[in-house]
Amino acid sequence: MTRRPRAAVILAAGQGTRMKSALAKPLHAVGGRAMLDWSLDLARAAGAERVVTIWGAHSPAVRERAEAAGALTALQDPPLGTGHAVQQAQEALEGFEGDVVVLYADTPLIRAETVEAVFAALDDAAVAVLGFEPDAPGGYGRLIESAPGVLDAIVEAKDASDAQRAVRLCNSGVMACWSETLWGWLSRLTNDNAKGEYYLTDIVALARGDGLQARTVRADASEVLGVNDRADLAAAEAAFQTRRRAEAMAAGVTLTAPETVWFSHDTQIAADVEIEPHVVFGPGVTIASGARIRAFSHLEGARVGEACEVGPYARLRPGAVLETGAKIGNFVEVKKSRLGAGAKANHLAYIGDSDVGAKANIGAGTITCNYDGYFKHRTVIGEGAFIGSNSSLVAPVTIGRGAMTGSGAVITSDVPDDALGLARARQETKPGWAARFRAAMSAKKSKATE
Amino acid sequence: MTRRPRAAVILAAGQGTRMKSALAKPLHAVGGRAMLDWSLDLARAAGAERVVTIWGAHSPAVRERAEAAGALTALQDPPLGTGHAVQQAQEALEGFEGDVVVLYADTPLIRAETVEAVFAALDDAAVAVLGFEPDAPGGYGRLIESAPGVLDAIVEAKDASDAQRAVRLCNSGVMACWSETLWGWLSRLTNDNAKGEYYLTDIVALARGDGLQARTVRADASEVLGVNDRADLAAAEAAFQTRRRAEAMAAGVTLTAPETVWFSHDTQIAADVEIEPHVVFGPGVTIASGARIRAFSHLEGARVGEACEVGPYARLRPGAVLETGAKIGNFVEVKKSRLGAGAKANHLAYIGDSDVGAKANIGAGTITCNYDGYFKHRTVIGEGAFIGSNSSLVAPVTIGRGAMTGSGAVITSDVPDDALGLARARQETKPGWAARFRAAMSAKKSKATE
Amino acid sequence: MTRRPRAAVILAAGQGTRMKSALAKPLHAVGGRAMLDWSLDLARAAGAERVVTIWGAHSPAVRERAEAAGALTALQDPPLGTGHAVQQAQEALEGFEGDVVVLYADTPLIRAETVEAVFAALDDAAVAVLGFEPDAPGGYGRLIESAPGVLDAIVEAKDASDAQRAVRLCNSGVMACWSETLWGWLSRLTNDNAKGEYYLTDIVALARGDGLQARTVRADASEVLGVNDRADLAAAEAAFQTRRRAEAMAAGVTLTAPETVWFSHDTQIAADVEIEPHVVFGPGVTIASGARIRAFSHLEGARVGEACEVGPYARLRPGAVLETGAKIGNFVEVKKSRLGAGAKANHLAYIGDSDVGAKANIGAGTITCNYDGYFKHRTVIGEGAFIGSNSSLVAPVTIGRGAMTGSGAVITSDVPDDALGLARARQETKPGWAARFRAAMSAKKSKATE
Repeated sequence: MTRRPRAAVILAAGQGTRMKSALAKPLHAVGGRAMLDWSLDLARAAGAERVVTIWGAHSPAVRERAEAAGALTALQDPPLGTGHAVQQAQEALEGFEGDVVVLYADTPLIRAETVEAVFAALDDAAVAVLGFEPDAPGGYGRLIESAPGVLDAIVEAKDASDAQRAVRLCNSGVMACWSETLWGWLSRLTNDNAKGEYYLTDIVALARGDGLQARTVRADASEVLGVNDRADLAAAEAAFQTRRRAEAMAAGVTLTAPETVWFSHDTQIAADVEIEPHVVFGPGVTIASGARIRAFSHLEGARVGEACEVGPYARLRPGAVLETGAKIGNFVEVKKSRLGAGAKANHLAYIGDSDVGAKANIGAGTITCNYDGYFKHRTVIGEGAFIGSNSSLVAPVTIGRGAMTGSGAVITSDVPDDALGLARARQETKPGWAARFRAAMSAKKSKATE
Repeated sequence: MTRRPRAAVILAAGQGTRMKSALAKPLHAVGGRAMLDWSLDLARAAGAERVVTIWGAHSPAVRERAEAAGALTALQDPPLGTGHAVQQAQEALEGFEGDVVVLYADTPLIRAETVEAVFAALDDAAVAVLGFEPDAPGGYGRLIESAPGVLDAIVEAKDASDAQRAVRLCNSGVMACWSETLWGWLSRLTNDNAKGEYYLTDIVALARGDGLQARTVRADASEVLGVNDRADLAAAEAAFQTRRRAEAMAAGVTLTAPETVWFSHDTQIAADVEIEPHVVFGPGVTIASGARIRAFSHLEGARVGEACEVGPYARLRPGAVLETGAKIGNFVEVKKSRLGAGAKANHLAYIGDSDVGAKANIGAGTITCNYDGYFKHRTVIGEGAFIGSNSSLVAPVTIGRGAMTGSGAVITSDVPDDALGLARARQETKPGWAARFRAAMSAKKSKATE
Repeated sequence: MTRRPRAAVILAAGQGTRMKSALAKPLHAVGGRAMLDWSLDLARAAGAERVVTIWGAHSPAVRERAEAAGALTALQDPPLGTGHAVQQAQEALEGFEGDVVVLYADTPLIRAETVEAVFAALDDAAVAVLGFEPDAPGGYGRLIESAPGVLDAIVEAKDASDAQRAVRLCNSGVMACWSETLWGWLSRLTNDNAKGEYYLTDIVALARGDGLQARTVRADASEVLGVNDRADLAAAEAAFQTRRRAEAMAAGVTLTAPETVWFSHDTQIAADVEIEPHVVFGPGVTIASGARIRAFSHLEGARVGEACEVGPYARLRPGAVLETGAKIGNFVEVKKSRLGAGAKANHLAYIGDSDVGAKANIGAGTITCNYDGYFKHRTVIGEGAFIGSNSSLVAPVTIGRGAMTGSGAVITSDVPDDALGLARARQETKPGWAARFRAAMSAKKSKATE
């Protein structure tokens, strides 16, 4: 049997007022990625060939971002309920025949396998609803089953009988439906309820009324955690981190203190990497086997090779590439720079827009002066070069292979291979000066405090 | 009905031996503020016009701090129990007529509303006692009610019947009483008990014996958490942080990792501020909307303007003021300095006693040399100035508007507006020197290891 | 009664495949110490005079480390079960008569007192087995007692009756036995079971069959936590940290945020030390009373004297010694260096291989240039010296008592006592240069973006 075509409608038009934010709710991030992007990726991962994002008039930024990500968009204005929101997708889905799933841009943790299961349930039903069993079912709508997996009705908590309220399976809101029936049902929704809204959930009753089957699919409660305020956002972040930490450990990564390590959605860490306490991974990090990420390190957009040592207190910014065995030590920042195999920058340094050869040693306090206020310039440091402490390398500049620079030098011209580059004022000694200074200052100080 | 005058007696005379500390227990801090100060502020917030701190002979520092905060004090020496402690306040409260509440300098988390409710209960009772329901009532005295809110007796756990032990409402120690009856009851207390102490709780029985009413008021167990050892202190700190994190999120602050962010009692953070993992706020911090506080930052006594970016690894010390859109990057320390709108110090710098103009750019490795061992001097950097990397600005010194300084310069004289200030030794190249050095050192090294 | 001699056999031959590691499981660390070392120390602390480590052919590194630590070793190859493993120790224990305990190199948290209790149980029994009550007994073997402390049999979960499965006391694997009976029983073990292995636990049945007594000893479940994968390793680390944090607080150490502080196995902290959030202690740290370890500090192999202040963001590396009242501030790294009483290095500095006199003040940005690529050299800074900001001290070099160095100086020659050492290029001013530069660059930039 060939799989039917799939589409997704992502509801992202809510006001999100409880976030108390100028930023639209779907653009708030979990694991370093906007919740909208989580839902767009989820839709694609579950095989949706058309994805329509429904946005609200208050947040054109949602539309921009969805379109930038290649999704179709439709405006819902004014907002008249979830059923009305899905209805706005009809034009964008013109000509589409297949299965349509409705997802939410504030529910970032659903797995693709789960949506896959919801689509699969449409093989023998016209509607499938994703349920979950929360600790406290309280106000959630209940999924009433006539048999396991067979959905009879969705009943709102306030309308539920005692027996129905005792049902633990609740409605997550995620739902899939045949396109052949969806638009007709949406057009038949009514808004004669307290809020005057058109509810998507009502299509279950329409399906059943039409003599069609509906099914339930179960998800873990942690997957369908929805975000309505900043505490929810933190809870979703925590759930994401718990999942990623467990995955990393299962893959052979040592996390001395898992609860203090923060991953991004795309962090890639090989087996036998050791991560010490208090480490933050921004987006775009890849770490090869045998590397050690020491405490208090912050990595973002960086590639760390095998057996590298990073930190403590290392800051790797986007474009940092460490080749095998390179070492970045404390209070060192690396940006858009490659360090060759075995190269080292162990202490208090800024390495920006640089290409550092294998086994080069960059002394403590070295600064690459890469910016003149208008342009960024590159620094090239040859293999085996030795940069003296407290050097300033004024880019564009090249330090040759095996070259050295003197401590405290401001290097503005290239240093040839194997040469020494120096720039240093002659040292003078003023005997007794410090003693005289102290005497004068002490006198001044006691006068000042008289 | 006019409110009756209010007073508070703060018990702070305990030995606190389980703290194992040279510092008196009431001076240990929660949320960056001494527990004594929490109780003094609580008393005032609840409307006490006279506050008397009872101190013990072993800790005159408690007396000093209380007096510095404007409270009255009374010595309890020797310590003969809580009733005896309150009795010591009688002289300081001479002439006071109204309601008196007894608070504790080791119970820092009680809310002003809760004490307000205790006072309010004196409208129709002579004594009011604050109760709470702990998870494990165990050894706590039980508040026996004849009806909800009506206190019949306080029964010590060891004297309680089985039925009384089943009562979950326990005595927090916080208690309020009419001044008209308090001193008389205290004088009638006896010490015929195992410890030979005069117990404040016994006034409930005296009140009931005099035919007067007593009432209970309920607090959440987390509020009345008392501190007897360092583990309790950590538990109180954790409870305080949990409360503050929740308040921040409710107010629209994003906390990616709430459990890794540490607030002080007076931290003020506007809506739409984003706080990354691992951030510590010492006392005196205010953050305006749209600012982003990146990971591993430490702020204390600092004011951060709108849309500023701070960190990662930024250290803002007292007197740091960042105006709109200013940016402090990694491994940068700012002390007693103002950065104008859009000014930047992105990498490894020390900015002390400085005034930095709008849009000025301070290069990596810049140090303001503000201290000569005797005096601190100021550095002034004009609007739009560009400070070259690894500069030393020897204060007092002024860098003009739009001026620049060369990399590695030691600037000791003022640089006029739009000028360039330079101080640099000429670069020399010694061809082949590095190769000869390596050869010599390798020989020496192999000799040393022979 | 004289105590019988004691020996220990440590099982360290397992493959540990679930660790997914190139490093043998017993060499993974908890609290900064390899699990193998935990078990070797445990054996010695419990009085074992001979300790035999059983290693597997896949991990000669285990043998090396055990021998380096002074233990005997025996190879188990091929691995045929726990009974077979212990049998391999027979040759190493040739001539030993006394009590033998079997320990595991993947169970790092057992206390010496617990093993002591297991040995003690051999006073009136031939076998003693350490049991524990896990939350979920599930698949563990059950210890079936005929009376409290009297072991009748060990029953595997799959062979257990319903009544036996209801028993909560489970087998930890730790077991002790008289040497006089051990080897005979081991030789009588059979491998007619599903896995074809010789099980150590079967000696209980042999002992009972021989009419000898067996006993149970109870341990807390957290002690016998075994490590099979990285999640277990993190759980063991967490249990260790929880224990150490509680011990520190009980001893009078303030931990503002205990869950963010990471100790090593040998961290020694005196009473009245204050430790702020987010601190990591590597091995070999000792902290004296009154010291304050501020947030984001990382200490390893360091000795911190009374009333010192360390951090925030201080990195103390092995060989750092701070005498009374010394102060190391933010973004400062100290390695193999002594700071005398009251000496200070408050900001962005690297102090390596140095001896710093009392009350010396090391300016911001100071770097000791201790490494020439081949040798490390020492820097000596005299009492009361004042090192100017951004100095480079090129070792070997001595700054005299009370001497000063100018800001930005590269000091290559000794500076006598009370003298000033300077090395500075004369400052030049180029009026209007910055304005012309901006004009030129703006033109270039607009051209580049045309």
